Amino acid sequence: MRTKKLFILTMILVLLSGQAVVAQNTVNNVKLYELNRQKHRTNINVPEIDGYKTLKCDFHMHTMFSDGIVWPTLRVAEAWYEGLDAISITEHLENNPSRPHIGGDDNSSYEIALPASKDYNILLVRGAEITRSMPPGHLNALFISDANKLDVKEPLDAIMEAHRQGAFITFNHPGWKAQQPDTCLLFDIHKELIEKDVIHAVEVFNENEWYPIALGWCIEHNLAVTGYSDIHEVSSHYYPLDKYHRPMTLVFATERSIEGLRDAMFARRTVAWFSKYVAGPDHLLQPLYHNSVTVSKLKNSDSKGRTLVEVRNNSDFTFELQPVNADFPGATLQPNSTELIRLDPVKAPARLQYTIANWFIDTGKNPTVTHQL
Amino acid sequence: MRTKKLFILTMILVLLSGQAVVAQNTVNNVKLYELNRQKHRTNINVPEIDGYKTLKCDFHMHTMFSDGIVWPTLRVAEAWYEGLDAISITEHLENNPSRPHIGGDDNSSYEIALPASKDYNILLVRGAEITRSMPPGHLNALFISDANKLDVKEPLDAIMEAHRQGAFITFNHPGWKAQQPDTCLLFDIHKELIEKDVIHAVEVFNENEWYPIALGWCIEHNLAVTGYSDIHEVSSHYYPLDKYHRPMTLVFATERSIEGLRDAMFARRTVAWFSKYVAGPDHLLQPLYHNSVTVSKLKNSDSKGRTLVEVRNNSDFTFELQPVNADFPGATLQPNSTELIRLDPVKAPARLQYTIANWFIDTGKNPTVTHQL
Amino acid sequence: MRTKKLFILTMILVLLSGQAVVAQNTVNNVKLYELNRQKHRTNINVPEIDGYKTLKCDFHMHTMFSDGIVWPTLRVAEAWYEGLDAISITEHLENNPSRPHIGGDDNSSYEIALPASKDYNILLVRGAEITRSMPPGHLNALFISDANKLDVKEPLDAIMEAHRQGAFITFNHPGWKAQQPDTCLLFDIHKELIEKDVIHAVEVFNENEWYPIALGWCIEHNLAVTGYSDIHEVSSHYYPLDKYHRPMTLVFATERSIEGLRDAMFARRTVAWFSKYVAGPDHLLQPLYHNSVTVSKLKNSDSKGRTLVEVRNNSDFTFELQPVNADFPGATLQPNSTELIRLDPVKAPARLQYTIANWFIDTGKNPTVTHQL
Amino acid sequence: MRTKKLFILTMILVLLSGQAVVAQNTVNNVKLYELNRQKHRTNINVPEIDGYKTLKCDFHMHTMFSDGIVWPTLRVAEAWYEGLDAISITEHLENNPSRPHIGGDDNSSYEIALPASKDYNILLVRGAEITRSMPPGHLNALFISDANKLDVKEPLDAIMEAHRQGAFITFNHPGWKAQQPDTCLLFDIHKELIEKDVIHAVEVFNENEWYPIALGWCIEHNLAVTGYSDIHEVSSHYYPLDKYHRPMTLVFATERSIEGLRDAMFARRTVAWFSKYVAGPDHLLQPLYHNSVTVSKLKNSDSKGRTLVEVRNNSDFTFELQPVNADFPGATLQPNSTELIRLDPVKAPARLQYTIANWFIDTGKNPTVTHQL
Repeated sequence: MRTKKLFILTMILVLLSGQAVVAQNTVNNVKLYELNRQKHRTNINVPEIDGYKTLKCDFHMHTMFSDGIVWPTLRVAEAWYEGLDAISITEHLENNPSRPHIGGDDNSSYEIALPASKDYNILLVRGAEITRSMPPGHLNALFISDANKLDVKEPLDAIMEAHRQGAFITFNHPGWKAQQPDTCLLFDIHKELIEKDVIHAVEVFNENEWYPIALGWCIEHNLAVTGYSDIHEVSSHYYPLDKYHRPMTLVFATERSIEGLRDAMFARRTVAWFSKYVAGPDHLLQPLYHNSVTVSKLKNSDSKGRTLVEVRNNSDFTFELQPVNADFPGATLQPNSTELIRLDPVKAPARLQYTIANWFIDTGKNPTVTHQL
Repeated sequence: MRTKKLFILTMILVLLSGQAVVAQNTVNNVKLYELNRQKHRTNINVPEIDGYKTLKCDFHMHTMFSDGIVWPTLRVAEAWYEGLDAISITEHLENNPSRPHIGGDDNSSYEIALPASKDYNILLVRGAEITRSMPPGHLNALFISDANKLDVKEPLDAIMEAHRQGAFITFNHPGWKAQQPDTCLLFDIHKELIEKDVIHAVEVFNENEWYPIALGWCIEHNLAVTGYSDIHEVSSHYYPLDKYHRPMTLVFATERSIEGLRDAMFARRTVAWFSKYVAGPDHLLQPLYHNSVTVSKLKNSDSKGRTLVEVRNNSDFTFELQPVNADFPGATLQPNSTELIRLDPVKAPARLQYTIANWFIDTGKNPTVTHQL
Repeated sequence: MRTKKLFILTMILVLLSGQAVVAQNTVNNVKLYELNRQKHRTNINVPEIDGYKTLKCDFHMHTMFSDGIVWPTLRVAEAWYEGLDAISITEHLENNPSRPHIGGDDNSSYEIALPASKDYNILLVRGAEITRSMPPGHLNALFISDANKLDVKEPLDAIMEAHRQGAFITFNHPGWKAQQPDTCLLFDIHKELIEKDVIHAVEVFNENEWYPIALGWCIEHNLAVTGYSDIHEVSSHYYPLDKYHRPMTLVFATERSIEGLRDAMFARRTVAWFSKYVAGPDHLLQPLYHNSVTVSKLKNSDSKGRTLVEVRNNSDFTFELQPVNADFPGATLQPNSTELIRLDPVKAPARLQYTIANWFIDTGKNPTVTHQL
Repeated sequence: MRTKKLFILTMILVLLSGQAVVAQNTVNNVKLYELNRQKHRTNINVPEIDGYKTLKCDFHMHTMFSDGIVWPTLRVAEAWYEGLDAISITEHLENNPSRPHIGGDDNSSYEIALPASKDYNILLVRGAEITRSMPPGHLNALFISDANKLDVKEPLDAIMEAHRQGAFITFNHPGWKAQQPDTCLLFDIHKELIEKDVIHAVEVFNENEWYPIALGWCIEHNLAVTGYSDIHEVSSHYYPLDKYHRPMTLVFATERSIEGLRDAMFARRTVAWFSKYVAGPDHLLQPLYHNSVTVSKLKNSDSKGRTLVEVRNNSDFTFELQPVNADFPGATLQPNSTELIRLDPVKAPARLQYTIANWFIDTGKNPTVTHQL
């Protein structure tokens, strides 16, 4: 009762004064939050394997301290938004461009990014790109302690200085047409350095280029299979991030730390992921697939009496499954989705065996996966 | 060497004849797959709780057999694409419209959809909507055996026939303005039927309407909290499915079967999910939240020495976390994303306590969640 | 002054009674409009040519009255949302499936859709699909007066009855693999009917298939070039409408009416548009291009002294412009976007000549367009 | 015949050598263009008015030369992608932060961006932000000749130096809570400078804030109505550009040149556009609306005999049309879309009169538009 009277009274007063009250709140400053993109870290959903954590890494990128167009701190923020765990800013040592009004040395980029990496909980690996004509071409040195010392005249001196600093060294974009227009060769110098355990990895993917032949080298010579963005621009300007993650290397580590990364990479526990493709050794791709996809034969048949098999992809990977023999259907599994496979109950197989047509375990070779029903 | 000679020879021949070869393949029929939307079931990511499976259910919808505009089989296909586990097609019993050229009876809709439900592995619950003026308004009867028998003159006779068939009965859209323009009341007849265990649930959400007061009834009278689409149109025409799932009820069941659903619903193990909102009893929302979100205090501090706490949302839910006292920051957790919370190390709390401002456990009441650090 | 006093008084009262006031408004029924997709007609932006209106038409589709899965009225609503001007629902005459609980005859589909077409201002052309084995295969008869009369035993009788009704007859999907697995042939019967002016058009595009060889037939025999969806499903389930319009035929008509359409089609003023491709006679594609794209040489040079040419695409078409000789750059023009072309000022050409690599004026032949600078 | 023989021969050779041929092309370097976002300038579709060109301008933004985080050249590239015609990079003069390794002075930002602006055909207006405590707060000086001369101790000296350089001066974000937490006042100093024609404009919109009261000042004192981004970050990180254009000022100019801009702004031919809102004087909003929207009464009635009126929005604006009296329906016009309005033929009005509820011509005042039928 009291409430009702007060309500009527209030309403009268609102008619008299309320407009002014409201006006104070709404004419001075109205926030239009719909004009803001809410910032957050989008999780990347890929499984752990063999008890290792799966760290999402991009260890090849540039900033204004070589020929990139963004400041080092932005690389850290991009990594956060995109769900990466670790990055390395690998400036060109040799042609650090004399941009107007920018100074610093070969370590500046790392030093500027370091506080941001702490703020965003991104692992920042100190690295640099040894940038030479072919051979040996471009090589990334990761886990170094002082980039300035690598900025020397002779390519081999730079490489060996990195080696002395304990670097993990990658042969970058071997099929890049600016250096190998019609070929994609492993030169003698590379073979030598591989043999001496100075080169440990090859980029089978770089920016938007995929070098299938280089995957064969990795398998033959036991090199880590890697793929990176080599981004110079704003990441979201270059990649359609609503459709694909940035290209990256998945590193299977005992812990999420610089030390964990280093151990895993020297142990070659890496695969490259780019667009819908994954490349790496079969013994890593097998658990990666099986921890991503569940296959269950359903109890009930469909309306035509066929056996139903549910194939569920719990990951952000895409799988193009092609039956090894033609007696049962294949399926394309989009990220985070489920397909049904219908089998003739009479000749239903006891197991489904597929090749993953968009995953690679060697040059021109796809993994084969098997599910018992 | 042999390859090279053959290569040259081939190239010559290709220049002569190749065009014709290619022409045969490309002038007759070129498939433009980019014009196809790839069809697949998009997984809904919400956790299990208390050892129960979380079934995603929409138990209120219409087709051409009442006043909907789609055929029953499409409802099953939509459910598959959208990741639902179970549906019920609940035609209006009384005003089954005499559309041109359509016949059938109150069971036709179910019978037509049943084979499709087997093909898509969707649980199809037989149901119907008792559609009367208020009171008692509209009520959905689920798990019935013959809808035709419910199509009788007196509302109460229809309800009691459903009850005899073992129906789970829901009071639909209580605040619908067509029946309660300015109110949202539980009438005496409802209270009576609740007391007699004839009405077991209320829709706290319907189509695009949310009735907070009805959540209070559910808590007070131990009714199942439900929310459904009541869709009449094509689902993707009505809902912006790229942004939100269709409104649904999560049912926590021992198994994915009609029997599992029935047991769970009679046991009131349900919550309603619509847009970014979730409504249900606190004892269900607590584990739903805690199985969705992980909170970890990080070892390393940020660049200003602040303690970092990572809050990771592994689900498709959205959480608006507001600190119970103001000494630490809140966070809005988008689906499948991660936020960092920064705490002053001096006055860092031993635990974080939040209300979830967009989840509801009673009329105007949000759940409180606690994380020990 | 008065306002201020009232303000204070009001605030006191609000503290006392306001909560109750607010509660009444928000606990009964809260509308969550974010859960609604706002429905509207999205304009299709393509230019007029030669003083004709450009009507966007889909004259091949099915509903539940043959083997489609939607009701005829939905076809009209879809046309409205997608910006089409005119449709024809072309049910299969012969195999009108005996779906459970559906009756009617070969005219029912049109009759049900007609009131909806008036409500949405969509031109509804009465049509039907003569559905036979090859030859003559499937043929669409548009602008007929009674579909039932076409439902006769002999294919030729059906065709000639349509002809007597004044039909515009199209040879549908000639390269459809179900009828021509390895070929895409114009049979003698087709040639005969073309010669007798009974067949007036060919589908060079259908659903997601493009038959380049059929474009050559159209050019050789002066047939209307057409492309349609042949949709059986919900349109937005089948086509990714956020990326591409549904395939359609553009008809250049003196007025937006059934009569205008008929005149234009018999006059062969049509082109087919599907994904990024357009097919039709050069004399129609030339003005369509030139009314879509503006090319302007800018007054100012770029920072390297190069001449800048702005190429602006005002339409929803995509253009892949390839220079006829290699002295200047090409460009891919996305819908509603602008590109800059940079020319060496010393050897800058007086005109830019391009082929449009994704538009077709004959089998394997692209149009050439010229811009004077 | 010759072709056929060659074809068979070729096929044999392909079987022998072809695989090697193909291998060479595909194992070295495969380009995955799907990993690239195609870069282009998206046109902004707003009409011209009164014979003036409509230039889309953002004259308030920052880079690394004050407290922004991007390099000046990126601001130009962003403007190109987003369809802007003109920008001004308005660094804070006073607190040019001493970032590590960056030098330069108050003119550096402009000088670095200038060549890029020529490459992208973006008009680059030299400007700077006078950044002081309130009053006078922050003011932007556009069309200046030397920013260094404005970097002086006394605020008024800076303003008058800008005035001497012929600057167009804007009072920035008057309701910014850091300077006016509870108010949004025009101080005496502002009124004085307005009277002396030193201040010519006010930001009624800044970043994500809208100051309705400031629109009233503009109307009362004949100031240009402006709204800008004040962007410090990467534009696409801050704004959801798939939904809304960046906030901007539309300037109605005789030509697309710096001179054209200056004349138009001193003549107050500007309106502010932010999210779905537009603010400006009625005499500019009227033609902007009428050149965007066409209203046509259709010849044919709908199925219920109602008169149909087609309302077509050809622009990127959104319009919320509310009938001035309630006898006919309103409509929300999304960008580039069409709505149908249905009128009772008996009491159909001779004209439709609407207020545009999301456009503003004064504090709390919407424009009224009229269409004769």
